[in-house]
Amino acid sequence: MVRREWEPAPAMKKPRQHRSRQRKRMRAAPPGSMPGTLIADPNGLQPKLRVVAYGPDGVVERDLHDPHELREFFPKSEVTWLDVQGLGDAALIERLGEVFGLHRLWLEDVLSTRQRPKVENYGDIRYLVVRVLEGDAVLETDQISIFLGPRFVVTFQERYGDCFDTLRDRIRGGKGNLRSHGPSYLTYALLDAVIDHYFPVLERLGERIDALEDQLIEAPTSSSLAEIHEVRRELLTLRRAVWPLREALHHLLRDGDTAFTADTRIYLNDCYDHTVQIMDLVENYREIASGLIDVYLSSMSNRMNEVMKVLTVISTIFIPLTFVAGVYGMNFHPDAGPLSMPELRWPWGYAACLVFMAAIGISLTAWFWRKGWIFSGQPGERRHPKP
Amino acid sequence: MVRREWEPAPAMKKPRQHRSRQRKRMRAAPPGSMPGTLIADPNGLQPKLRVVAYGPDGVVERDLHDPHELREFFPKSEVTWLDVQGLGDAALIERLGEVFGLHRLWLEDVLSTRQRPKVENYGDIRYLVVRVLEGDAVLETDQISIFLGPRFVVTFQERYGDCFDTLRDRIRGGKGNLRSHGPSYLTYALLDAVIDHYFPVLERLGERIDALEDQLIEAPTSSSLAEIHEVRRELLTLRRAVWPLREALHHLLRDGDTAFTADTRIYLNDCYDHTVQIMDLVENYREIASGLIDVYLSSMSNRMNEVMKVLTVISTIFIPLTFVAGVYGMNFHPDAGPLSMPELRWPWGYAACLVFMAAIGISLTAWFWRKGWIFSGQPGERRHPKP
Amino acid sequence: MVRREWEPAPAMKKPRQHRSRQRKRMRAAPPGSMPGTLIADPNGLQPKLRVVAYGPDGVVERDLHDPHELREFFPKSEVTWLDVQGLGDAALIERLGEVFGLHRLWLEDVLSTRQRPKVENYGDIRYLVVRVLEGDAVLETDQISIFLGPRFVVTFQERYGDCFDTLRDRIRGGKGNLRSHGPSYLTYALLDAVIDHYFPVLERLGERIDALEDQLIEAPTSSSLAEIHEVRRELLTLRRAVWPLREALHHLLRDGDTAFTADTRIYLNDCYDHTVQIMDLVENYREIASGLIDVYLSSMSNRMNEVMKVLTVISTIFIPLTFVAGVYGMNFHPDAGPLSMPELRWPWGYAACLVFMAAIGISLTAWFWRKGWIFSGQPGERRHPKP
Amino acid sequence: MVRREWEPAPAMKKPRQHRSRQRKRMRAAPPGSMPGTLIADPNGLQPKLRVVAYGPDGVVERDLHDPHELREFFPKSEVTWLDVQGLGDAALIERLGEVFGLHRLWLEDVLSTRQRPKVENYGDIRYLVVRVLEGDAVLETDQISIFLGPRFVVTFQERYGDCFDTLRDRIRGGKGNLRSHGPSYLTYALLDAVIDHYFPVLERLGERIDALEDQLIEAPTSSSLAEIHEVRRELLTLRRAVWPLREALHHLLRDGDTAFTADTRIYLNDCYDHTVQIMDLVENYREIASGLIDVYLSSMSNRMNEVMKVLTVISTIFIPLTFVAGVYGMNFHPDAGPLSMPELRWPWGYAACLVFMAAIGISLTAWFWRKGWIFSGQPGERRHPKP
Amino acid sequence: MVRREWEPAPAMKKPRQHRSRQRKRMRAAPPGSMPGTLIADPNGLQPKLRVVAYGPDGVVERDLHDPHELREFFPKSEVTWLDVQGLGDAALIERLGEVFGLHRLWLEDVLSTRQRPKVENYGDIRYLVVRVLEGDAVLETDQISIFLGPRFVVTFQERYGDCFDTLRDRIRGGKGNLRSHGPSYLTYALLDAVIDHYFPVLERLGERIDALEDQLIEAPTSSSLAEIHEVRRELLTLRRAVWPLREALHHLLRDGDTAFTADTRIYLNDCYDHTVQIMDLVENYREIASGLIDVYLSSMSNRMNEVMKVLTVISTIFIPLTFVAGVYGMNFHPDAGPLSMPELRWPWGYAACLVFMAAIGISLTAWFWRKGWIFSGQPGERRHPKP
Repeated sequence: MVRREWEPAPAMKKPRQHRSRQRKRMRAAPPGSMPGTLIADPNGLQPKLRVVAYGPDGVVERDLHDPHELREFFPKSEVTWLDVQGLGDAALIERLGEVFGLHRLWLEDVLSTRQRPKVENYGDIRYLVVRVLEGDAVLETDQISIFLGPRFVVTFQERYGDCFDTLRDRIRGGKGNLRSHGPSYLTYALLDAVIDHYFPVLERLGERIDALEDQLIEAPTSSSLAEIHEVRRELLTLRRAVWPLREALHHLLRDGDTAFTADTRIYLNDCYDHTVQIMDLVENYREIASGLIDVYLSSMSNRMNEVMKVLTVISTIFIPLTFVAGVYGMNFHPDAGPLSMPELRWPWGYAACLVFMAAIGISLTAWFWRKGWIFSGQPGERRHPKP
Repeated sequence: MVRREWEPAPAMKKPRQHRSRQRKRMRAAPPGSMPGTLIADPNGLQPKLRVVAYGPDGVVERDLHDPHELREFFPKSEVTWLDVQGLGDAALIERLGEVFGLHRLWLEDVLSTRQRPKVENYGDIRYLVVRVLEGDAVLETDQISIFLGPRFVVTFQERYGDCFDTLRDRIRGGKGNLRSHGPSYLTYALLDAVIDHYFPVLERLGERIDALEDQLIEAPTSSSLAEIHEVRRELLTLRRAVWPLREALHHLLRDGDTAFTADTRIYLNDCYDHTVQIMDLVENYREIASGLIDVYLSSMSNRMNEVMKVLTVISTIFIPLTFVAGVYGMNFHPDAGPLSMPELRWPWGYAACLVFMAAIGISLTAWFWRKGWIFSGQPGERRHPKP
Repeated sequence: MVRREWEPAPAMKKPRQHRSRQRKRMRAAPPGSMPGTLIADPNGLQPKLRVVAYGPDGVVERDLHDPHELREFFPKSEVTWLDVQGLGDAALIERLGEVFGLHRLWLEDVLSTRQRPKVENYGDIRYLVVRVLEGDAVLETDQISIFLGPRFVVTFQERYGDCFDTLRDRIRGGKGNLRSHGPSYLTYALLDAVIDHYFPVLERLGERIDALEDQLIEAPTSSSLAEIHEVRRELLTLRRAVWPLREALHHLLRDGDTAFTADTRIYLNDCYDHTVQIMDLVENYREIASGLIDVYLSSMSNRMNEVMKVLTVISTIFIPLTFVAGVYGMNFHPDAGPLSMPELRWPWGYAACLVFMAAIGISLTAWFWRKGWIFSGQPGERRHPKP
Repeated sequence: MVRREWEPAPAMKKPRQHRSRQRKRMRAAPPGSMPGTLIADPNGLQPKLRVVAYGPDGVVERDLHDPHELREFFPKSEVTWLDVQGLGDAALIERLGEVFGLHRLWLEDVLSTRQRPKVENYGDIRYLVVRVLEGDAVLETDQISIFLGPRFVVTFQERYGDCFDTLRDRIRGGKGNLRSHGPSYLTYALLDAVIDHYFPVLERLGERIDALEDQLIEAPTSSSLAEIHEVRRELLTLRRAVWPLREALHHLLRDGDTAFTADTRIYLNDCYDHTVQIMDLVENYREIASGLIDVYLSSMSNRMNEVMKVLTVISTIFIPLTFVAGVYGMNFHPDAGPLSMPELRWPWGYAACLVFMAAIGISLTAWFWRKGWIFSGQPGERRHPKP
Repeated sequence: MVRREWEPAPAMKKPRQHRSRQRKRMRAAPPGSMPGTLIADPNGLQPKLRVVAYGPDGVVERDLHDPHELREFFPKSEVTWLDVQGLGDAALIERLGEVFGLHRLWLEDVLSTRQRPKVENYGDIRYLVVRVLEGDAVLETDQISIFLGPRFVVTFQERYGDCFDTLRDRIRGGKGNLRSHGPSYLTYALLDAVIDHYFPVLERLGERIDALEDQLIEAPTSSSLAEIHEVRRELLTLRRAVWPLREALHHLLRDGDTAFTADTRIYLNDCYDHTVQIMDLVENYREIASGLIDVYLSSMSNRMNEVMKVLTVISTIFIPLTFVAGVYGMNFHPDAGPLSMPELRWPWGYAACLVFMAAIGISLTAWFWRKGWIFSGQPGERRHPKP
C-alpha cells in the first residue's frame, strides 16, 4: 500500500483487552424508571465545554466553565457551535438541554451511549446520533450526539479529543464555504469528518483480509481462524455504525427536510454516497471473510490427511515386515520334523528372508508412490493441475 | 461489567428444567370449536384482581374479589387500571370482557398464551399483546394482554408478581406525567416497563457470548457447542418477543392512531426506538454466535489433529525400531552358513545394532521436529505469525 | 405436555411408506392439451355428494346420488353447502361445475391435487384452495377446493372423512352465528377448521424437536440426523401449506373483497392471525432444527475424537514397551563379546527390564492423564466449565 | 409413480457430455460492434419456415422456402403463425424482421440464444423469450422467441422439432377456442405448452430426490454427492428458465397490456399460476437438496467413525497381547539368577500366560461391547431410540 | 467452446501479483479536508486529451495539449467528445471541470478511483461512473467517469488504451446511428461497449467453473479450493461492477430522464437488459461455486476415508498374525512340563501354525472384501448405484 502523509504513524499495538473491556451502558436509567430520567455514567468524564461562534465576519472561540457564559454567544451569533466532551455530569447536561430547548428523551439518549445512529426531528431541532471509531481498534465505537437548531449546533462526545480538529482549522481559516453557510452546513461538515474517518480503517481491514488470504493459502496456522473471526466482528461493528446512518441519511434526503438548505443537500448527498460505498465494501469483505473460513477448514482437512498418510505409509510398510520377522522368530524346534521351520537351517535362508522383506518394502513403497502419497510431484495428487 | 444498584442480586441458578418444562397452549379451544370459545388452562392460577383508579387529583387502589365492585370506579374515574393476574377462571374473564366491552375473539387470545405480540383495534378499544421474560432464563416468555379503552386500561397476566411495581409507585407518588395524562400514557408506560426489562437480559447475553468467545479461543470443551446452541435459542426467543412488537409499534406510529394523543406518541416513538435498538443487538449477537460455531468446529479439528500427531509420531518412530529388533530376534541358525545372521556373533554386533536404532529414532525425531509436529514454537506450524 | 380431551388417542404408528408413496399429480392433463381438459386420477375415489342446506329457520341434510337432486335445494335455500368427497369421476365434476357456474380452468385445478393454496375470484364466485394435513404424518397434504358463491358453498375433497364434523354439528345444533350468517361465514368456518388442525401437529413437531435436542446433547445416535432431516421436511411441507394461505388471506383482507361481509371479515382476520402465528413458529422451528445439525456434527466430531484418543493412548503406551521387549528378544550371542547383550546374564536384568518398562508405561499414562485424555474430570478437557 | 399414457417412453440414457458440451453464445456480435448487428451462429441449423394461417373458417398450412411466399398469407388471414426452426441464416432472419416490422435489437436477441425469459413491447408488437428444456436432461435449455403482432405470431426456435405438435393438431381440428380467438390466444397457447412441459421434468427431479434421500439414509456411496450436485444444478437451470418468466407474466397481467384481450388474460393468469407453482416446488426441492448434503456429510463422518472403530478395537485388543508375548520372548538367561524369568521354567507357565492373555482380550472386548463399539444393538450407540 | 474471431488471442498468463498489488485509493483527500479537495494519485499517469467533434456532416479528431484548444470545438460542434486518459494532474482536471461546468464534488469522485458505478444528475449534466475490467484478470477494475452535457461528453479513464476503439471507428466511418444522434446516444454507445466487454470474461469464468467441476469430481487436488475461492472473488468483483450499474440504469429508465431522448432510451433499455442478464449469470455461477465447495469438502473426506481404510485393513490383518507369531516366539521351556508349549515339538506344528495364520489372514480379507473396503466394484460401497 502506498502510505499517504495524512495517515497517522502506526501506534504501538495495544494489548487486546478482551476480557476486561468495559461495556457501555445500553440504558442509563434502571428499568421502569420515569422516561427522561437522566443518570450519568459514574465512570464518565467531567464535561469540557468549548464554544465556537462564527459568522461570515469573524470567529470567537472560548472554553466555557459555566453554561451561563453561553448567553454571550447564543443567540447573538450567526452560528454557535457548542462542543461538550465528557458525559459525567447529568445536571450540567440537563441545564444545557434547557438552554437550547432539547427534549428530555433526547438527553436520556445522549447519556445512553449505545444508541444506533439515527436522525430524529422535533420542532425545529434535529437530533443526529453517529458513532465514531476509537483509534485503531474497531471493536468498540463512541457515540457523538449532534443537535442542529436554527442558529446553533451542539455536539456531545464521550471522550476528550476528537476528529474535528481539521474542521476547527477550516472555521478559523475562513476558507471554503464553512463560514458563509449556516448551521446545517456545519452539521454536514461534522458528519463528513466522521464518515471520512471510516475509510482508512476500512483500508486497513482490506489489507488484513488480503494478508490472511495469502497466509491461509500458503501456511495456515491454528490462530488463523481466530483472526478471521476478529476481522468479521470488526466488520460487524463497522456495519452497525454505518448501516443505520446510511438509512437515516437516505430518509433525510428523500423527505427533503427543510432544516437543510438545498445547497447543503448536495453535500449531504455526497455523504450519503460515501456511506453507500462503505457498506458496499463492508459487505464485500464480509463475503470474502466467509469464504476464507471454507479455505481454512479445507486446509485443516488437508493437513490431517497429510498426518494420516505419514502414519499409514509407515505402518503399512513395516507391519508386514515385522510380521515376517516375527514368523522366523518363532521357536518351533527344528528337530521336531522336516516341516518344522527348515528354512532356519538353509545356508541362504537369512539372506533370502532379507531379500523377501526388501521386496515387500519396495513394492509397498512403489504402490504408495503410484498413489501419490509419498514424494511430491507424483501421480495421484498432482499439484496445480491445469486442464 | 459495572454492577448498578437497580440490578437484582443474581439468584441461585435454577436447574434447567428442559425435559419437564410445560409448554404453553397455542390455542385453548379444541380444533373446530366455535370461535370465541373460552377455555381456561386447567393449570392456570386463580385470577387476582387489583384496580388502580386515578386522576390528576388522587389515586384509589383496591384488591377486588368480585367484578361487581368495579362499578365503584369505572367509569367514574379518569383512568381505571384493572390488573388481572392469573388466567385460571374463564367465567370471570368472560364477565370482565362484558363489563369493558371486549370482543370474544380477543378474550380467546388472552387465554391462548402463546400469541405473538400484536396491536389490534376494534371500535374504540386497542388490544396489545406483549411478551415478558420470566426471570433470568429467556427460554420461555409470559404473555401480557393490555386493553386500552377510552377511560380504562385492563391488563391480563399469567402469573402473580410483575414488572410494574415501579410504575405503581410512580402513580401513587404522582410524580411525572403519569397522573395528569390519560389511559394512553399509562399504556405507553406499561409498554416501556416491559421493554426496559429486555435490556439487562440482553446485556447478560452479550457477556455470555464474550465469555464463550474467550473460552473457545483459549480452551474449548465438549460442552461449548451446547452452550452456544442455548444462547442462540435464547436470542431466537428474544427476537420472537421483540420483532413483532417492533412491527406493531411501527404501524401504530405510521398510521397515527388517534387512541394515542400526539403527546403520547413522542413517548411511544421512544419505545419503538428501543425495540429497534434491541433487534439490532439481537441480530448482531446472532451473527457472532454463528461465527462462534465455525471457531468451535475448527478447534475440534485442531484438537483431532493434535491427537493424530501424537499417534503418528510415536508409531512412526517405534515401528521401524521394533522391526529391526524383530529381525535380530529371528532364529536363523548361525551354523547354517556364513550368511546366516553372522551379525549375531560379531563382538560389536549388539552395540552397532543399538546405535543403528538410535540413529533411526533420532533422525525420525528430527524430521518431525522440522515439520513442526513436536515441540511447540518450531517451524512448520508457527504460532501467531505476523506478516 | 398436558393431554387435552379433544386430542385424538395416538394411533398406532404407521410404517413410513417412503418408497412406495404415491405422488400426487401436478397436472392432470398431458402437456399441450387444451386448457380446461378434465381428466380424473384413475386411482381417485368415486365421489360422494352430501348437501347441507340451511337458513336461520332450519337445516336439511342429504346424501345425493345424482346432481339433478341439487335442484331441490339450490338456489332455494339461504345457504347450500355441497360437499364432494372423492375426485374419481371427471364427468360428474364437470356437471357440478355447470350447475354452479364454475370456470373450467378451476375445475382443472380441482383435479390437479398439488395446487398451492390460493384465493381467486371471477365474477361473483371465489375459489379457495387450502391444504389439509392427513392424519399424523405431515409429509403429504390433501387439497380442499372451496367455492364460495352468492348462495352456495361447494367443497371438493380428495378423500372420504374430513375435519368438518364439529362444524356440521354446529350447523345442526344452531348454536353460534353459523346459521344466521350467509355462505361467507361458512367459508370462514371451513378455513378456521382447517387452520385449527395445524396447531396440534405443530405442537407435536415442537415436542419432537425438544426431544431431539435433549437426545443430541446427551446421547446422539447415527439415526439422529435422519430424524432432524425428517422434521425439517415436515416443517417445509407445513410451510408450503400455510405460507401461501397467509398471503392469500392478507390480500383478501387488504383489498376488502365484498364477497365477505364486514362482520365476517373480523373473523377472517382472526384466521389470518393464526396463519401468521403458525408461520412464526414454523420459521422458529426451522432455525432451531438448523442449529441442531451443527450440534449433531460437532457431537460426531467429539465421538471421533474419543475413538482416536483410545487408539492413541493404547498404542502410545504399548508400542515403546513392545520395542523394549523386542530388543531383549534379539538373539545376539552372549558369547560374542562383553558388549553383546550382557544384560541377559545379569541376575537382576529381567527385573530391571520389567521395572524400566513399568516406568515407561506409568510416565506415559501420567502424561495422558495430565493432558486430560484419560479419566474424566481431569485437567485438559474440563467439562462444564463455568467462568 | 403412476405412469400416464402421455408420458414418453424413457429414452436410452444419453451419456453425459459434460466436457464436450458446446456452450451457447451469450452475445452473437463482438463487443463494441454496432447495436443490432446480426451474426448467425456458424453451427446454427439452416432455418426451416412453416406457416399456419387460420381463422374461424379454415386453416392453411405450408412449408415456405422463400420469405416472399409469406405475402400469400400475411396480412390476409386472421392469424398468421410463422414458425422458424433453425437460426443459421442471419440474412433470412433480417428479411423476416423487415416483413413483420421487428426491431433490429430484438433480432439480435433472437440470435443470442442465452437470453433470460422476458416480455418486451414496442409499438404494437410484443416480444416474448421463453426457454424450453431439451429432452430429458435439464442442464441446458433452448430459447424460443415469440413475436406477437396485431395479426401474426412469429416463433423462432433453435432446433428442428418442438413441443407444439399437439397445438398444431388443435388448430387443424378446430376444437376449443383456438381458431375463434386472435393471435394473443395463440401466444397464450404456445406459452402454456412450454410451461406444461416443465411439469414432467419436475416430477422426475422430485423422484430422483426421493431416491437419493432413501439411498443416502440407507447406503450412501461416494458418488451420491456428485448426484446431489447435479440435481441442484438442474434445479438452478430450471429456476433460471421459470423465475424471469413468472416475473414477466406478473408484470404483463398487472399492467393490463391491451395486446391481450380480457378473455385471454384469464388464461394467461392460469399460466402465471403454473409458473408460481413450479417456482414453489423448485424452491422446495432446492431446500431439500441442501438438507441432503448435511445428511451426506454426516453419513461420511459416520462411516469414518466405523472405520476408526474397527482399527481401534483390533489394535487395542492385540497390542497389549503382543506386548505380553514379546516379554516372554525376551532372552534373559534363566541361569542368571532366580529372578531371571523364572516363569519360563514353571510347568504351568505357558498355560497361565495363555489364560492371562485370554483374560486381557476378553475384558477389552467386553469393554468395547459395553461402549457399544462392537456388535450392533448394544448399549452406547442405541439405534432408533424412541424417547 | 467455439473460438470466435473477435476474441483476443489468450495472453501469456500473468503471474498473480497478489501480495504486491497496489490498492486503489478510496478517497483521494485526507479525512476532514474540505469537500471538493482535488488531490491526484502521485502514481497516476499524465493525462492525455483527445477530442472527437462530430455532427451528421463530418468528424474532427485531435490530440490536445492544452485545454484552451477546446474552444475550437466546444460548443461549436454538434457533439464534442473529450476523452481524458490518465488522472495524474489535478490542476488540469480542475480546469477541464471549469470549462464544462462540472461540480467539484464530482471531480473529487473522478480522482477517487474506487467509486461504485452510479448515475447522478445536477442541472443539465449527468455524471455516470462505470467500472471496466482490466484485461483478463477480474480481480481489479478500472473506473471510467462519463459526463453527459447538452452538447458534450467527457470521459475520464485511469489508463492509456481503452475499449472504445471500435466505437471511434464507427464515428469515423459514419455508419449506423452514431453521427446522426446527439451526445446521449454516444453515452449509450460508451456504456454498451463497457458492458459488452463483460461477456467474454463471464464466458471464461463459466468455462473455468465447468473445468473445476469436472476436476473436482474426477481428481480433486489440494489447490482446487484455492481456485474455487479465486473464482468466487472474481465473481464478487464482477458483481460489484455490474449490480450498481444495473440499479442506476433501472432508475434512469424508470424516471424517464429527459437528458436521454425517447429514441436513445430503447437502446439504453437494451443495455439494462444486458446488465440483468449478466447479474443473472453471476448469481448462477456464485451458487454453483458454493455447491462446488461442498463437493470439494466431501471429496477430501472421501480421500481421508480411503487413507484410513488402507491403514485399517493392513493393521487389522497383520496385527493378529504378528500376535500369533509372538506367542510361538515365547521362550517357555519345553522341558518345564507337558503343557509348556508342546506345539513347538510337534512335527506338524510349524505347518499348522502357518495354516492357522493364513486362515486368519484370508478370513479377515474376506470380511473386508464383503464390507466393500477392498477391491473396487464389491458390495458395501457400490459405485454409481442406480435404484
